[in-house]
Amino acid sequence: MEFIAEIDIMPHKELLDPQGKAVLSGLQKMDLSMVQDVRVGKHISLKLQAADEAQAKDLVEQACKKLLANAIMEGYTIHIKAI
Amino acid sequence: MEFIAEIDIMPHKELLDPQGKAVLSGLQKMDLSMVQDVRVGKHISLKLQAADEAQAKDLVEQACKKLLANAIMEGYTIHIKAI
Repeated sequence: MEFIAEIDIMPHKELLDPQGKAVLSGLQKMDLSMVQDVRVGKHISLKLQAADEAQAKDLVEQACKKLLANAIMEGYTIHIKAI
Repeated sequence: MEFIAEIDIMPHKELLDPQGKAVLSGLQKMDLSMVQDVRVGKHISLKLQAADEAQAKDLVEQACKKLLANAIMEGYTIHIKAI
């Protein structure tokens, strides 16, 4: 079966996010001062083959741990759907 | 009311995504050859104040068009929830 995994990789809440702060300051200078906080991370979309959803989730977890996310600075959330 | 907007900004499907190709080649060298395709984009989380969900959505659309996304190369999807 084929699956699409949508992964959000975001900096931990406790850490300063300089890219988010820069975007926030940009938005506030552009008449969008209702925006109070911005955090910027990565979105990764993986297409993969696996026997079932549990195996797909396991593969994506491995990919996140080994390559995609830096656990010291980032957390990730995974959503998997069959296609 | 306060809202959180989760925005995914991804390169258009028609375009080559060199960052995605690099990640794909990395994963395939790491016993994760079941992964067939990778696309890498940005995930932005905005906290904002607005009168209602329609106004929040409108503000986030403006932010995407004016600053966050490059419409020539990227498309975006927005999910808004009240907090």
